[in-house]
Amino acid sequence: MVLAAIAARIGARHVHGPDAVEPRYLDDESGGAAGRPAGVVRPGDTAEVAFVLATCHAAGQPVVVQGGRTGMTRAALPRDGELILSLERIATVEAVDAVAGVMTVGAGCVLATAQAAAAEAGWWLAVDIGARGSCTIGGMIATNAGGHQVLRHGMMRDQLLGLEAVLADGTVVSAMNRLLKNNSGYDLKQLFVGAEGTLGVVTRAVLRLRPPAIRRETALCALDDYAGAVALLGRLDRALPGQLGAFELMWDEFLSAASALPGGSRPFAVQPPLAALVEIEGQADGALAAALEACLADGVIADAVIAQSERDHQRLWTVRDAIGPLVEAMPLVEPFDVSVALQAIGPLVDQLRRALSAELPGSRPLFFGHIADGNLHLALALADEAQRAAAERIVYEAVGAMDGSISAEHGIGMLKRAWLGLSRSATEIALMRQLRGALDPKGILNPGRIFTGQPGAA
Amino acid sequence: MVLAAIAARIGARHVHGPDAVEPRYLDDESGGAAGRPAGVVRPGDTAEVAFVLATCHAAGQPVVVQGGRTGMTRAALPRDGELILSLERIATVEAVDAVAGVMTVGAGCVLATAQAAAAEAGWWLAVDIGARGSCTIGGMIATNAGGHQVLRHGMMRDQLLGLEAVLADGTVVSAMNRLLKNNSGYDLKQLFVGAEGTLGVVTRAVLRLRPPAIRRETALCALDDYAGAVALLGRLDRALPGQLGAFELMWDEFLSAASALPGGSRPFAVQPPLAALVEIEGQADGALAAALEACLADGVIADAVIAQSERDHQRLWTVRDAIGPLVEAMPLVEPFDVSVALQAIGPLVDQLRRALSAELPGSRPLFFGHIADGNLHLALALADEAQRAAAERIVYEAVGAMDGSISAEHGIGMLKRAWLGLSRSATEIALMRQLRGALDPKGILNPGRIFTGQPGAA
Ligand SMILES: Cc1cc2nc3c(=O)[nH]c(=O)nc-3n(C[C@H](O)[C@H](O)[C@H](O)COP(=O)(O)OP(=O)(O)OC[C@H]3O[C@@H](n4cnc5c(N)ncnc54)[C@H](O)[C@@H]3O)c2cc1C
Ligand SMILES: Cc1cc2nc3c(=O)[nH]c(=O)nc-3n(C[C@H](O)[C@H](O)[C@H](O)COP(=O)(O)OP(=O)(O)OC[C@H]3O[C@@H](n4cnc5c(N)ncnc54)[C@H](O)[C@@H]3O)c2cc1C
Repeated sequence: MVLAAIAARIGARHVHGPDAVEPRYLDDESGGAAGRPAGVVRPGDTAEVAFVLATCHAAGQPVVVQGGRTGMTRAALPRDGELILSLERIATVEAVDAVAGVMTVGAGCVLATAQAAAAEAGWWLAVDIGARGSCTIGGMIATNAGGHQVLRHGMMRDQLLGLEAVLADGTVVSAMNRLLKNNSGYDLKQLFVGAEGTLGVVTRAVLRLRPPAIRRETALCALDDYAGAVALLGRLDRALPGQLGAFELMWDEFLSAASALPGGSRPFAVQPPLAALVEIEGQADGALAAALEACLADGVIADAVIAQSERDHQRLWTVRDAIGPLVEAMPLVEPFDVSVALQAIGPLVDQLRRALSAELPGSRPLFFGHIADGNLHLALALADEAQRAAAERIVYEAVGAMDGSISAEHGIGMLKRAWLGLSRSATEIALMRQLRGALDPKGILNPGRIFTGQPGAA
Repeated sequence: MVLAAIAARIGARHVHGPDAVEPRYLDDESGGAAGRPAGVVRPGDTAEVAFVLATCHAAGQPVVVQGGRTGMTRAALPRDGELILSLERIATVEAVDAVAGVMTVGAGCVLATAQAAAAEAGWWLAVDIGARGSCTIGGMIATNAGGHQVLRHGMMRDQLLGLEAVLADGTVVSAMNRLLKNNSGYDLKQLFVGAEGTLGVVTRAVLRLRPPAIRRETALCALDDYAGAVALLGRLDRALPGQLGAFELMWDEFLSAASALPGGSRPFAVQPPLAALVEIEGQADGALAAALEACLADGVIADAVIAQSERDHQRLWTVRDAIGPLVEAMPLVEPFDVSVALQAIGPLVDQLRRALSAELPGSRPLFFGHIADGNLHLALALADEAQRAAAERIVYEAVGAMDGSISAEHGIGMLKRAWLGLSRSATEIALMRQLRGALDPKGILNPGRIFTGQPGAA
C-alpha cells in the first residue's frame, strides 16, 4: 500500500518492490550484509521526498536513506523491512555563483561532479575523499565527511552554508542560506550534519567554495620517535601558519609493509621508526624547504626528502597511498578511525601494539594518521568476526580511556553503536535521543543507526 | 521561595532580591531599558547552575542569563519578573594545553583574560571584538560572536571544541570534547551556539587555539566604485589564498565624516568614493605590496597607501576606527549589522542611501563593512524611537528582499525579533520553536528573545 501510493505520485518506474531491488542497493563499503528491504524508491525532487516520508510516517514504515553507499559503518545498508530511499535522482549542480564562490547542488550529486563544476567556474570545493567518484554531497553532510583537506579547510560542516531537509513526517525545512555570516536565530543546518540521516533527509545544499590552491610543496621527513613528530608539527605550524595542508604520519610497520609491496618505494637508505609526509599550500616558494632545514639543524628531524617535481610529489605520496593495496591483501579488515589528543597518539600506538600482539598475534597492525587532526588510523588483518569483536574491544576501550573518539570521521552507523558510550557521556546520549524523539517520534528514519534499542527500532 | 531555596544552596551573598539588584545588572550595550527583575543569582559552578535552573523550572520562574552584558540586541536585559542568572563567578581559565593548543575556561571568563592566558602559553585565541574587556566566552558562544578575525579563522563556532551546558530543567549536559575531529554521534555543542541562551546555559567551554599570527601587512586602497572593491577582493583572495585577514570597505560618507573629526586623517590627496583597508597575515614579506602593484597596473584600484611601519599601520586603522567617536556623537544610534551576497552589497547601499535620504533625511548614514564576509554595517543618527522603527523597516525590508540576514553577527534578542521572518523561512522558524519547546517546554530560559509570543513568555 505504501509502495502503491508512492508509485502513484513519483512514477512506477522509480519504485521497486522487495523482489525487484537491484543488487547495488544492498551493498556498501562496510563489508556488512543487507537484510531484505521493503523496496526502493527514488524521488525526483524535494516535494517527492516529502510525499515519500509523509506516507511512510503515516504507515509507520521504516526508511533507510541512501546516497552513494560509500559509508564505512553500515548506516546505509538496509535491514529487514526497511524501505530504501535513494537520492540518486536529485543530483544536479543547480548553480555556481562565480562572484561570491557559492554552489547549490542536489543532495544526490556525486562529489566529483560538484568538484568539477566548481573548478570549471574557477573555484575549489575544498573537501576531497577517496570515494569522490561515488559518494554524494548529502551522504557527506550526513556523515560530516573529512578527508584530505581538513587541516586547512575543515570537514564537510565547514563547507556547508545552507540546506533543505525533509523531516520524518514529511515537513520540508528550507534553510538554503548563502551567507557566510548569519546570526538570525538558530543555525538549523548544524542539526543534520553528522546525524547520519536520523534527523531528516537532506535534499539540497549550498556549499562554500574557496579560491584554487596555488603552489604546493611536499616532503617526506624521517623521525626518531613520536615526540619528534609532535615537535615537527609544532615547528611547521608556527613557521607556516595556516599553510600546512597535510601531515601524514606513518609508523614503522606501515613503512616496512609499504616498501615490501611490488614496486614499493624506499625513500630513505635506512628506514626510520616513523616518517611524516608533509605538504604546504601557499605562495612562498621554498618556504617548506627552509623550515625543514631549520628542523634538521636543530635535530627535530633526522632526514628529509623534498619533492623537486610533480613526479617526486607523486612518488612521495606512493608511500602513503600504499594503504590501498595493503588493505586489499587482507582477508577481513577493520578500518579503525579514532582520535585522541595530539600528545596521546604516540602512547596509544605503543599500548595498542602491545595489546594486539598479545591478544591477536596475527593481526599485523598498520598505524598511520593525520596526527595534526588528532586522527589515528589502524588497519588490522583479521581472521573472522570473533577477532573483529576482540579488536574492537581492545581499540575502543583504549581510546575511551584516553577521552578519545571511536569515530573521528566515519560516523557510528550500525557498526560502532555498541561502543558509543565510550566516547560520549550518558547525558550527551540522552540529549541526542531527546532530539531524535522530538524530530522523529516514530523512529522511522534510519532506525538502529547511532543508537541501540531505540523506540520503534530493533 | 525560589530565592530562599537558591540562597540556601549557593550562599546568601550570591543572591539578591528585587530591591537589592545592583545597577550594572540592569544595563547592557543596546540602549534599552530593563524591567524590574525578580532578583539576581550568581552560582559558583555547574552544579549550582543546575540547582538554580531546576528550582526555577519547578516554580515556573523565568530566567535571564547574563555574561558580560555587552550584547547589542537587548537579549541579556531583564524584563519584569525575570530572575537574573549571572555567570560572573564561573570565570576561571581552567587549563591551557600548550602542546595541543586547547584551552578550557568557565563560561563567565572575560575574553581578554582568555586571550591573555592563550598568549602566555604561546598560542592565540583567534577571536577578537571591541568588547574584549567585558564580554564573556559564554556570551560569545550564545551569540556566535564574530569580530576582527572572521575572515581567516571564522566566528566563535569555529573556535569551539566542546562545552558543558545546563538545560532549562537543570539537566547537565557534559560535552567537553577536546578533539578536532569527532563524528561519534550528534555534535550537540552546535545547538547552543548562537541560541542566545534560549536552549541552555553554557557553564564551561573548550576552545581551539591557533599559532600566533606572524608578519602582517596593511594597506589602504582607493577605489572608484563597488565593482572595483569586488574585483580587488577577488584578486587578493587568489593571489594570497588564506592570508587575507581584513577587508574593511568604507563608503564616501564614512570617509568624509572620519576625515572631518578632530585629528582625522586624510590618507589620499583627493578622497575616493570608496576605500578598502586590507590586511594580510602570512610569511612572505612584501606579498601584499606586490599584489596591489599588479592591481594598480590593471586599473583595479586607483591608489594605495601601504604601511611601512607599526605607526603607519596604526594610522591606517585610525580611519576605520573613526566609527567609535562618530557613533558617540550621535544622539540615538542603531548599529545595523546585516549581510547579503557579496555582489548585492553595492546595490543595497545605493538603495538604502536613496530611501533614507527620502524618508529620514537627517539620518546621515555611514556605510562600512567586512564585505568579504558579506557583512555591511550602517550607523544612523536617529532622533527618536519612531525614527528607529522607520529605519528598521527600510533596512530590514531591503535586506529581506535580497535574501539577506537582518543580523550577521549580533543576534536577534528582543530588538530584532519582529523582523526574524524576513531572514528565515516559516518552516525554519517552526523548527526552531520545536527545538525550543523540546528543550525548554515551560519556556523559562530567556523568554521573548529571538521569538515573539512564544508559550510561557510575554
Ligand atoms: C575509498 C573510500 C575513501 C573514503 N575516505 C573517507 C575520508 O577520507 N573521510 C571520510 O570522512 N570518509 C571517507 N569515506 C567514507 C564515505 O565515503 C563518506 O562517509 C561519505 O560521506 C559517504 O557518502 P555517501 O553518499 O556514499 O553516503 P552513504 O554511504 O550512502 O550514506 C552514509 C550515511 O549518510 C546517510 N545519508 C546519505 N545521504 C543522505 C541524505 N541525502 N540525507 C540524509 N542522510 C543521508 C545514510 O543514511 C547513511 O547514514 C571513504 C569511503 C571510501 C569507500
Ligand atoms: C564595543 C563593542 C564591540 C562589539 N563588537 C562585536 C563584534 O565585532 N562582533 C560581534 O559579533 N559582536 C560584537 N559585539 C557584541 C557583543 O560583544 C557580543 O555579542 C558578545 O558575544 C556578548 O558577550 P557577553 O558576555 O557580553 O554576553 P551578554 O551581553 O551578557 O549576553 C548576550 C546573550 O548571550 C546570552 N548568554 C550570555 N552568557 C551566556 C551563557 N553562559 N550561556 C547561555 N547564554 C548566555 C545572554 O542571555 C544573551 O542572550 C560588540 C559589543 C560592543 C559593546
